[in-house]
This record gives sequence, structure tokens and C-alpha cells, in this order.
Amino acid sequence: MPGMNKQYRLAARPVGLPKASDWEFVEAEVPVAGDGQMLVKNHYVSLDPAMRGWMNEGRSYIAPVGIGDVMRAGAVGEVVASNLPGFAAGDFVSGTFGIQQYALSDGQGVSKIDPSLAPLETYLGGLGMPGLTAYFGLLDVGAVKEGDTVLVSGAAGAVGSLVGQIAKIKGARAVGIAGGADKCAYVVDELGFDACLDYKSETFLKDLKEPLKSGIDVYFDNVGGEILDIALARINRHARIVICGAISQYNNTTPMYGPRNYINLLVHHARMEGFVVFDYVSRYAEGVKALAGWYGDGKLQFRTHMETGIENFPDVLLKLFSGENFGKLVLKVIED
Amino acid sequence: MPGMNKQYRLAARPVGLPKASDWEFVEAEVPVAGDGQMLVKNHYVSLDPAMRGWMNEGRSYIAPVGIGDVMRAGAVGEVVASNLPGFAAGDFVSGTFGIQQYALSDGQGVSKIDPSLAPLETYLGGLGMPGLTAYFGLLDVGAVKEGDTVLVSGAAGAVGSLVGQIAKIKGARAVGIAGGADKCAYVVDELGFDACLDYKSETFLKDLKEPLKSGIDVYFDNVGGEILDIALARINRHARIVICGAISQYNNTTPMYGPRNYINLLVHHARMEGFVVFDYVSRYAEGVKALAGWYGDGKLQFRTHMETGIENFPDVLLKLFSGENFGKLVLKVIED
Repeated sequence: MPGMNKQYRLAARPVGLPKASDWEFVEAEVPVAGDGQMLVKNHYVSLDPAMRGWMNEGRSYIAPVGIGDVMRAGAVGEVVASNLPGFAAGDFVSGTFGIQQYALSDGQGVSKIDPSLAPLETYLGGLGMPGLTAYFGLLDVGAVKEGDTVLVSGAAGAVGSLVGQIAKIKGARAVGIAGGADKCAYVVDELGFDACLDYKSETFLKDLKEPLKSGIDVYFDNVGGEILDIALARINRHARIVICGAISQYNNTTPMYGPRNYINLLVHHARMEGFVVFDYVSRYAEGVKALAGWYGDGKLQFRTHMETGIENFPDVLLKLFSGENFGKLVLKVIED
Repeated sequence: MPGMNKQYRLAARPVGLPKASDWEFVEAEVPVAGDGQMLVKNHYVSLDPAMRGWMNEGRSYIAPVGIGDVMRAGAVGEVVASNLPGFAAGDFVSGTFGIQQYALSDGQGVSKIDPSLAPLETYLGGLGMPGLTAYFGLLDVGAVKEGDTVLVSGAAGAVGSLVGQIAKIKGARAVGIAGGADKCAYVVDELGFDACLDYKSETFLKDLKEPLKSGIDVYFDNVGGEILDIALARINRHARIVICGAISQYNNTTPMYGPRNYINLLVHHARMEGFVVFDYVSRYAEGVKALAGWYGDGKLQFRTHMETGIENFPDVLLKLFSGENFGKLVLKVIED
């Protein structure tokens, strides 16, 4: 159906994992750019753990997605029409364009991107929000320094894979936690981490002793739950725990797991600090420049897990929570 | 029995609340100061929540008290004999002299004190470790600033009472949490807090809404447990949670309560940081000078809960955990 704009709208607030009836699939007309607007044709949309939080009601760092609204999502695409100074048809852009094929934008929060430097979808991953999250989280909140031991959960994921690589660039030891032998092999052999622990292994608790025998200086947490407690049990004096996410807990229908070993913060004069990447919007340019430089020098690797077809959005999103994705999860919504 | 040294030694590692059989009462001979030693006659010993942690086995910021050893405790007393340069008979001193009437010391960690400036027991409270804990915890870890709302639990206690008073000196709002109407009245009417919430009241959760309607910038936590979660639910952007203690949890025989709302650290870019006052030993002089200055100017009030008789130590210690003490808990061990 040419000229239509396929969208996913939020139909209900999920309880636990989002299910089919929480979504409404709509084929709307492609809108027309008015004064001070541009029309963007999305190529790829970004599927991220944070989206689960945006579906809940309640006070947070950003307003929840309204019932009936197009689901919020980062995306990259091409400008097809523009009544906005600074943007012209043919420009490639990234922004919060939502789970849809076409988006109107007033240019707020939109960046022009250069597909000749890196594949377009990279701007949703290593050169996009996940890259910036790893960069500011590790360097600013985690204050990593040479010789530190950095532990990161979700080590094969979009953010975690970069945290470990940046830690290595900064002269620290990088130890990852990931689910399964394949992901762990990738983290060590391809990404260059010093070690990776498979949390699905029966010997996980035994396996972590050797790589963490000198303790943890920075723990970058993407998962929450018991793994956070396991890390807190091994922190060094003045350790920094960076709370980036808690994906193990986002679909809980029971109360969130509270880390019992938080009292080790007292014992070791350590801190646990949270952040969201939007706090760093004024420094994005610095982050992108550093990440692109390392990428250009071959020091950073990005891995994309690409799925195809906007119709598949509800099912593909669930891969984040089952851990089925391997690399940054991206959905191609442009139709060839 | 003149010339004897009554002591309490640790007989067993307690499970839950320390009980009579965890202690051994000993009447030893008064020791003689050898080369490089002095003999101190204790007047007052300090009873503090941290003592419960020192009785447990395991890695912490300080070695556990050994089975059979005199129980570790801060104390103030008078030098009765000295073979140490810098200390002479008649000097008043504070140090970690233990639950006993006489202590040998090599001078490590011992400070001379001036009983003409403040009553001797004050050097176990407002001008001692609790005062320094409040000072460095609020100013250094909590980074309090003018206009902040500071919430402090254990507000009628040795540390909490000072935290609120120092917050007021620094131009912040001080809201306390304490157990019972008497303590709350003292915190507001005598200490000058802006409000105090009685956690034993059935209307506690309702009562805290008004004083905390603008959110919490600094939460100084002495108690842990559910109150920590209640505070985390109300933090402002860039809030600082100072983990000073968790007295509600020290005698648990079940796992410690983990704060489920820790994820609010992420949402509000906030941090939770722990410390023990021993981390600041190099800055004690700065702290004592400031505290003594405010005390001399009438800006700080100290309240001592004095009990008498070294024989009563095991029972008196338990008052800390039942909340029966009202002010800094001190045991007089000198016999008139």
C-alpha cells in the first residue's frame, strides 16, 4: 500500500512482558510537512531496554508514552521534504522518530549524520545513544582509570560491549558478564575483554573468582537483580557502581529486587550512581567525536542484530528481554 | 575490689541481638605501663551501633574483635602513668580503649582532650566520632548546600541530631525521622529541625508528604530497611544518599533488606555513597575545630544518655537497638 505510514501505537500499559494486545498496528496516511516541519522516512528503528520503562505510567526522567500514541523510539532515516532551515531533502538524520515508517519533525533533538563514515544503523548503536551511554557512563559516572578492574553486565549488548572496549582503551582490565558460551567467546575473542563470565553456567559463581580476585573498581550494571548483589560483594575501596539499567527486572510483576549488599558501600566507602544519557545532551558532540575517532582507528567494534519488517516489532522487541539478540537490536522498517 | 580491672570480653559471635552468653565478664589485674606505653583509667565508654558489626566475622573496614578479646569501644579517660613522650599523668585523652576500666595504650589514635571546653563525655559525642561522622558525612559525602532539603533518620540519635543541626547552620532545611512523639518534639523544639516524622506512628507515610513535598536532596541514612526505600521514592535530581549505617538491620538473622527503589538513582541521576568516619582521620582536626566552634557559639546542642556501671554493659548496649536511648549512649565505668 504505497503512500501509507505503518505505525505501532501503544494500546495498553503492559503488565509484565508486553503482549500483542498492548499494541495497535495502524496504517495511517503519510503526513505532509507544514511550516517549520520536515518529513523523515525512517530506515531503521532502534529497540532498546529503556522502551519498557517508557510504557509505564509514573514519574520518571521522561514522560510515559501516552495510550494511543506512536511508540517512542530512536530511528535513522532520510529527509524527504523540509520546510526547516538547516535540513533538506536527501539529508540523513537521527532522532526520536518512533515506531513508524514516516515521521514529522520540528528538528528538535535531530542530528544530521554521515552514512559515508559508518553504516547508517551504526548511528543507532556505537555512534548513537548506546555509544554515548557507554562513554559518559564509564568515563564520567564510573570515573575509570588506568589499572582499574571494570566489570560490566550485558557485555555482548549494545552498551556493555562498548563499555568493555572503552575500558581497554583507557588501560583498565575489562571483565564481562553475558548469557551463553557464544556471547562470551565473542566478548573475549572479538572485543578483547580480559574475561567473560557466562551467568547461565552452573559454575558461574565459581568462575568469577579468578578474574575478579583483585576486586572490582567499577561495576557497570545493565541488568540489576542478583548479579548486582554478586558484584557489590566484591567491590574495592572507593568503587563506583554505575546504574545504567536493570533489564532483568523491567518486566517483573513482583517488586523489584533490592540489592542487599548495598551496605558494602559503607564498608568500602564506595558509591552507586545512576544516570540516563539524556543528562549529557550538551556533551553529545564530544562523545560522538571520541567514539567515531576510535571507530575510525579500528579500536572499537560494533555489532548489529538486524531484523526486518515493521510488522514484526512486537515480537522482535521481546528478544531484548529473553536475551536472544546478539548485538545492538535494530529493526529495518523501510520497504525495498 | 580496688586495683582490679573490670572488663567485658567477647565470648561468642552473636546471632541476632547480642545475649548474655556472648560476653565474658573478667576482673583482671590492672596492667603496668611498659616502655612506650601509658596506662589510661577510663571514665566513660562509648556505646555505638557500629560495635555490632565489629562482633561479626568477615571482611570489613576494620578487623573483627577476636573471641576472648576485650570488646572494642571508644572511651575517654585520664592518664595515670605514662612512659610515652607527649602524654603525662593527669592528661585527659580519648581513644579506642575498650569496655574496661583501665587500658594500656601506645598512643596510636589517642587524642588529648580539654575538659574545660566541654564535659568529658562530649568527646564521645558531638566533639567525638559521632560529631565527626555527621560533619564529614553531611558536608563531604552529602555535599549539602544552601536551600537543600536534608532528611535524616535516627534524628534524635548521636549522629542524626548533629546532621540536622549542621544542615541548618549551612542554610538547608532539616527534616528528621525518629521513634516516638517525645523524640520528635525534642528534634524540632530543642534542636531546631524544620520537621520530624515519627516512624512509629500509624500516619507516618501520610505525615511525610507535606514536609517532603519538594523532594529530598540529601538523605542521611542511619537505619536502612524500609525507610531507605521510602526516602529513595522521593529523591530529587542529583540527590545524594549518604549511607552511614543500617541499625534496623544489624541484628537480622534473615538477609538484609535490599532497597528496591535503588533504581530511582538512575531515573534522577542520583548517587548513594557510603563511608566510615575512619576514612577521614587526616581531617579530624578540621572537623573538631568546626564542631567546637559551633558548640562554643551555642549553635550546636549535644544530648547524652548516661548509664552507670560497667557490669551493666550487655543490657545497656541493647538500648541502641530497641531505640530506648535518647541522645548519645555513654556508660560511666569509673567508680566513685
